[in-house]
Amino acid sequence: MAKSSFEYVKTFELDDTLLPNTWVVVRLDGKCFHKFSEDHNFTKPNDLRALKLMNYAAFTVFREFNDLLMAFGQSDEYSFVFKKHCTLYKRRAAKLVTTITSKFSASYVFYWNKFFKEEQLKYPPSFDGRIVLYPSEENLIDYMKWRQADVHINNLYNTTFWTLVKEGKLSPTQAEKRLCGTVSGDKNEILFKEFNINYNDEPEIFKRGTLLLKKHINMNESIKCISVIVDVHDDMLKEKFWKDHKNLLFMKS
Amino acid sequence: MAKSSFEYVKTFELDDTLLPNTWVVVRLDGKCFHKFSEDHNFTKPNDLRALKLMNYAAFTVFREFNDLLMAFGQSDEYSFVFKKHCTLYKRRAAKLVTTITSKFSASYVFYWNKFFKEEQLKYPPSFDGRIVLYPSEENLIDYMKWRQADVHINNLYNTTFWTLVKEGKLSPTQAEKRLCGTVSGDKNEILFKEFNINYNDEPEIFKRGTLLLKKHINMNESIKCISVIVDVHDDMLKEKFWKDHKNLLFMKS
Amino acid sequence: MAKSSFEYVKTFELDDTLLPNTWVVVRLDGKCFHKFSEDHNFTKPNDLRALKLMNYAAFTVFREFNDLLMAFGQSDEYSFVFKKHCTLYKRRAAKLVTTITSKFSASYVFYWNKFFKEEQLKYPPSFDGRIVLYPSEENLIDYMKWRQADVHINNLYNTTFWTLVKEGKLSPTQAEKRLCGTVSGDKNEILFKEFNINYNDEPEIFKRGTLLLKKHINMNESIKCISVIVDVHDDMLKEKFWKDHKNLLFMKS
Amino acid sequence: MAKSSFEYVKTFELDDTLLPNTWVVVRLDGKCFHKFSEDHNFTKPNDLRALKLMNYAAFTVFREFNDLLMAFGQSDEYSFVFKKHCTLYKRRAAKLVTTITSKFSASYVFYWNKFFKEEQLKYPPSFDGRIVLYPSEENLIDYMKWRQADVHINNLYNTTFWTLVKEGKLSPTQAEKRLCGTVSGDKNEILFKEFNINYNDEPEIFKRGTLLLKKHINMNESIKCISVIVDVHDDMLKEKFWKDHKNLLFMKS
Repeated sequence: MAKSSFEYVKTFELDDTLLPNTWVVVRLDGKCFHKFSEDHNFTKPNDLRALKLMNYAAFTVFREFNDLLMAFGQSDEYSFVFKKHCTLYKRRAAKLVTTITSKFSASYVFYWNKFFKEEQLKYPPSFDGRIVLYPSEENLIDYMKWRQADVHINNLYNTTFWTLVKEGKLSPTQAEKRLCGTVSGDKNEILFKEFNINYNDEPEIFKRGTLLLKKHINMNESIKCISVIVDVHDDMLKEKFWKDHKNLLFMKS
Repeated sequence: MAKSSFEYVKTFELDDTLLPNTWVVVRLDGKCFHKFSEDHNFTKPNDLRALKLMNYAAFTVFREFNDLLMAFGQSDEYSFVFKKHCTLYKRRAAKLVTTITSKFSASYVFYWNKFFKEEQLKYPPSFDGRIVLYPSEENLIDYMKWRQADVHINNLYNTTFWTLVKEGKLSPTQAEKRLCGTVSGDKNEILFKEFNINYNDEPEIFKRGTLLLKKHINMNESIKCISVIVDVHDDMLKEKFWKDHKNLLFMKS
Repeated sequence: MAKSSFEYVKTFELDDTLLPNTWVVVRLDGKCFHKFSEDHNFTKPNDLRALKLMNYAAFTVFREFNDLLMAFGQSDEYSFVFKKHCTLYKRRAAKLVTTITSKFSASYVFYWNKFFKEEQLKYPPSFDGRIVLYPSEENLIDYMKWRQADVHINNLYNTTFWTLVKEGKLSPTQAEKRLCGTVSGDKNEILFKEFNINYNDEPEIFKRGTLLLKKHINMNESIKCISVIVDVHDDMLKEKFWKDHKNLLFMKS
Repeated sequence: MAKSSFEYVKTFELDDTLLPNTWVVVRLDGKCFHKFSEDHNFTKPNDLRALKLMNYAAFTVFREFNDLLMAFGQSDEYSFVFKKHCTLYKRRAAKLVTTITSKFSASYVFYWNKFFKEEQLKYPPSFDGRIVLYPSEENLIDYMKWRQADVHINNLYNTTFWTLVKEGKLSPTQAEKRLCGTVSGDKNEILFKEFNINYNDEPEIFKRGTLLLKKHINMNESIKCISVIVDVHDDMLKEKFWKDHKNLLFMKS
């Protein structure tokens, strides 16, 4: 049983090394999460348990890979940002994107009960992953802004939509119609004038998503510096954030 | 908060469409499964519970994608073969490989308790995935033979190694030394002469791995044909197998 | 002057190896040849000198690469087909496509005077090249048919258009209008009824383009077999052609 | 003759768009130029006619593409640098690399007689091309330094080698042996002590290669600014060069 006569098939595996010196972003998206969220009675428009589970799965991924700089999540998606000089798995694209996707998916299931105490997981969910390279600091910051602007747009819409349905007793179709063509200001006004809801008072995690970062803490009694992963809900659309976190994109370890 | 000024970052996502009219193989491999199997007390050299869980996770993936022709698994790896004419996700490589990897990983955790009744899952495992194209029937068959020849080589080695350790009271280092430079015949002889074990009598699932296939069953009372997924442990290295399964590579649905 | 401190930039060159066991097609297209043909007084609708120069440049490429099976040209384009098992330049895409494009372009200029005796080359023309893989015999044959069908469609149109302009004294705009919406039959009829031209009597090289092939000739007096490159204008759209040339796609040398 | 039934083969052409916001470098290399230079009696170690022809062919390419920032040549190779924001041919890799390679090759043949007045071109030469992306200014500058350091190393070696052969009456093998293991200082000394040649006095074009740049000239009498292509032989290994040419990498048009 000569293995060698078949081994030539290995040459069909082609190299997929990523361009060096570029930030590698892996973004995961829940597959059919509209149905999944209904099957598991997610609260609308936001289910805090679900968001916390997403964050915890991301945290599990984050602490495993030293080459990660940060991660940003909202709804059923999560982006992971690797260092520019990351050489993990020799920068092979499939290896990077599948390992992250796999660890995240397994963690989501593994930690389900930690967050959904009374709701049982009915079937294994899945996420797809993609990989994108950003060559400049500006491009990467714009990527982060793009995802956070997306949270704002979606959350304002969803908050207004579900308020019209739940409080305003509109049918989903009527609520959709009502919101058609409206801009941000209109939605803020509907919420405030008709339902006495100030959108600004909504929880930050809903309005801005969650950013996972490494913080390096200098321990007083020693020279050692430990790093911890923290979750923040800051406004990345403001330049102040990037000034305050100048080192974020260039961290060494 | 103009979303549009950041949206240009989407143009950095490059097209990764796979060449049409080629068999798409996605192969998953367990990450650090040596440690994982020790942490979870897997029986050596083969843990039937672990193999059955792998098969069940693969079955969960298989029944979800109509475009899959077959899947073959052994140890901590599984290969999924898509039809030549598969157009799922427009044949985008990252989408295909991550969706399979994610669904498999989530299923592995989800169904753990079904197979490991007394052993608790301690942490979420992960799998990496890769994607390979095979243009001809011969190439694809050689791929399947390559993976099955691998099962044989590994399992004969592992069976002899662990018999020397468990029954023969050798240390792992001594067993390794003993087997160094031996060929298949030598290992068969050690097992038979020293431990009265006929390697041929070992379970097929250990010697040959597991092949998942769709069988189309014609229901007597109707014209309808239903398809079921079955697991077999046939010898794919024999030409007979491929003669008996002529249609396997060219199934329509 | 340490060279080594800059040499890291070489790692930015990424691998572009092509999938094995697939036919590699390199197709060249003249850049701005509409203008180029006017600047050099090409006869309309076909300039035999120009076609022969294209063929000769292709012949120059063909005889240099043993791994080429055939080449097909028409107007300002030429396709080169490499063997399925070609390993030239380790199947690196850029290397293959640029070498063919460069040799062809240089030959076009070098041999200009051989075919254009009274027309001087005014400036260097250029060609772009692309590379496409075909996994099956059927796909490759369909590619050849696609290019030859294209010759027919373009040449029938151009022949009718220029007859209307030159013989029929229509302006180009009038001729274009006259042909708008016509099918093949209509154009044949215009040519025959109005200008007494039987399109079938047009030269084969105009109607079908030129196929370059290797013919293996057995020398009577010896056992040696020599191969020569011949140009034919056969109908590749007929199955007979492919039956008569069964070995064409699978030649060894 | 339905064209449409074959047209599906076009879907086998895969997208090869390059990552945005990165400098695109196309480098050409002469194929078998060792033999080519002997066949055409190139002066050793440097043939000024050949270098000027290379520069002129590069100039012909340069003036055709607005998106080129600079070009650097030595011996039988030439590098072309496109702007970071270049969108020519939608950044399709094959299109960019083949168009440059083709234009250069055709120009080399076309302008041969302009520089080789008494030496006839015997056959069409060819060049291969490759494409590399550089994400940062530092990477691109290091690329340019890498190529120029290469000129220095090769030219010092070749100058000493040919002096030993021509003046020193060594055979090529003896000269090779003599130089084996020597560093720059040794070669400078051989030239100076044994042949009274000061390497620093060698022509700049030999020692440093040729850089083609666009210079923007403000015309006194008008507001218009015209751009001309100039060839310089500056020392790009010195930081001063890059300070003096700060705008070089970021030119707009």
